[in-house]
Amino acid sequence: MAKKEPIILVTNDDGITAPGIRALIEAVKGLGKVIVVAPDSPQSGKGHAITIGVPLRLYQVDIFEGIEAWHCSGTPVDCLKLARDKILQGVKPDICVSGINHGANHSINVIYSGTMSAAMEAAIEGIPSVGFSFLDYSYDADFSLCKEVAHDVTKKMLESNLPDGTLFNVNIPQVPKERYKGLKICRQANAKWVEEFDERRDPHGKKYYWLTGEFKNRDTGTDTDVWALDNDFASLVPVQFDLTDYKMKDKLQQDWNL
Amino acid sequence: MAKKEPIILVTNDDGITAPGIRALIEAVKGLGKVIVVAPDSPQSGKGHAITIGVPLRLYQVDIFEGIEAWHCSGTPVDCLKLARDKILQGVKPDICVSGINHGANHSINVIYSGTMSAAMEAAIEGIPSVGFSFLDYSYDADFSLCKEVAHDVTKKMLESNLPDGTLFNVNIPQVPKERYKGLKICRQANAKWVEEFDERRDPHGKKYYWLTGEFKNRDTGTDTDVWALDNDFASLVPVQFDLTDYKMKDKLQQDWNL
Repeated sequence: MAKKEPIILVTNDDGITAPGIRALIEAVKGLGKVIVVAPDSPQSGKGHAITIGVPLRLYQVDIFEGIEAWHCSGTPVDCLKLARDKILQGVKPDICVSGINHGANHSINVIYSGTMSAAMEAAIEGIPSVGFSFLDYSYDADFSLCKEVAHDVTKKMLESNLPDGTLFNVNIPQVPKERYKGLKICRQANAKWVEEFDERRDPHGKKYYWLTGEFKNRDTGTDTDVWALDNDFASLVPVQFDLTDYKMKDKLQQDWNL
Repeated sequence: MAKKEPIILVTNDDGITAPGIRALIEAVKGLGKVIVVAPDSPQSGKGHAITIGVPLRLYQVDIFEGIEAWHCSGTPVDCLKLARDKILQGVKPDICVSGINHGANHSINVIYSGTMSAAMEAAIEGIPSVGFSFLDYSYDADFSLCKEVAHDVTKKMLESNLPDGTLFNVNIPQVPKERYKGLKICRQANAKWVEEFDERRDPHGKKYYWLTGEFKNRDTGTDTDVWALDNDFASLVPVQFDLTDYKMKDKLQQDWNL
């Protein structure tokens, strides 16, 4: 008996019309049956936000030839939740791929990233999931290397017997293909954003603020995602969503006598 | 020389007018100089969202007697970022306390919670931080037990020499004080939400969806936050923001030969 064709759920946070999701669909469509559910507008930086106070809209769209696609008015996590309940209706996809994000999601960015939060929501549901991000923010970025990486990682994941809750964060460097050194398994670098707000005055004289920031890597390890990307590797960080700090838990039980 | 009075940054996700933040201010104001920065509207479920595409507003308000307070038009994480840059201007608070949330933030809820994301943003900045949540969603909840717990935990944290990045998630059960059994150090329970969307039709006949959900605990451990709360303890889970799954990292390096 022939093996059933895998179901591949595709999503992102840049919105359904972003070139990155089109590149991702092209990268994985040879590996199974693709279903797309993505936000109807850009949702960068939405983290793991869900929509509580307002209802959501979900419409089918015909913009990817021969592929079932839907867009949703909510956040990336809303898209995943709606896909599960209203589109897949209990059918569990074999994998969820998110991206390809226009911009980096390495290190601490995993926490702010809608791309990764959509993938994490799928992983919480027991679907092996992966987010892809490209270190190029431009709309007309060249996704050819990304597509190869996304194809290979997705294929490998489908072939592997990965446990429930598996979640990978893959970032791809902006380098010519001949300089690209391959995929490296990494840990999340200990880095952060140092922000300053640009203070302006509106026409009525009242202050308003634009978020601006500079990325600071405090981590000198050579096993981090930031190091890998700086050295022309793509990075793959396995991600978990049990946020318990077990070392601190043991220490507190001792120190606080609880 | 007298020890400098600690600076206590107070925030939440239910908004600056929520009874929970007033209770938290009352709980901690005897422990140091309190500065409040909170959203100007309810921001539940906003996770670690930041505001990128629109500018932010920040205004000082006089609603807590004798206490400097500001409200901000953004998410809980935006509040923290603005507080750091525009209010504290480089002065590092001794602690950040977030809440008291009207509703539970145990187990997987830590990922969706604006209360915890605000505290996590402070922790990323190196400020010892804690989020408090009460298992009572009602506006007129009785916060008296919560205030005692919040006071005691905050005091203990200020007295302890906690490392950079310390972050605690404290949930308080809805029990009469005589039944309350004390604080228990826990791990995050492996639980999730099973959602169904309520499908309706607008006056134009088009579908829209409201998120509804049921909480499912899959974890039978007696060392979890959910177990503690079910057994009349308050739970304290130490939280980290290095999301690397180190076990999976080792396994992949072997299995994938990378």
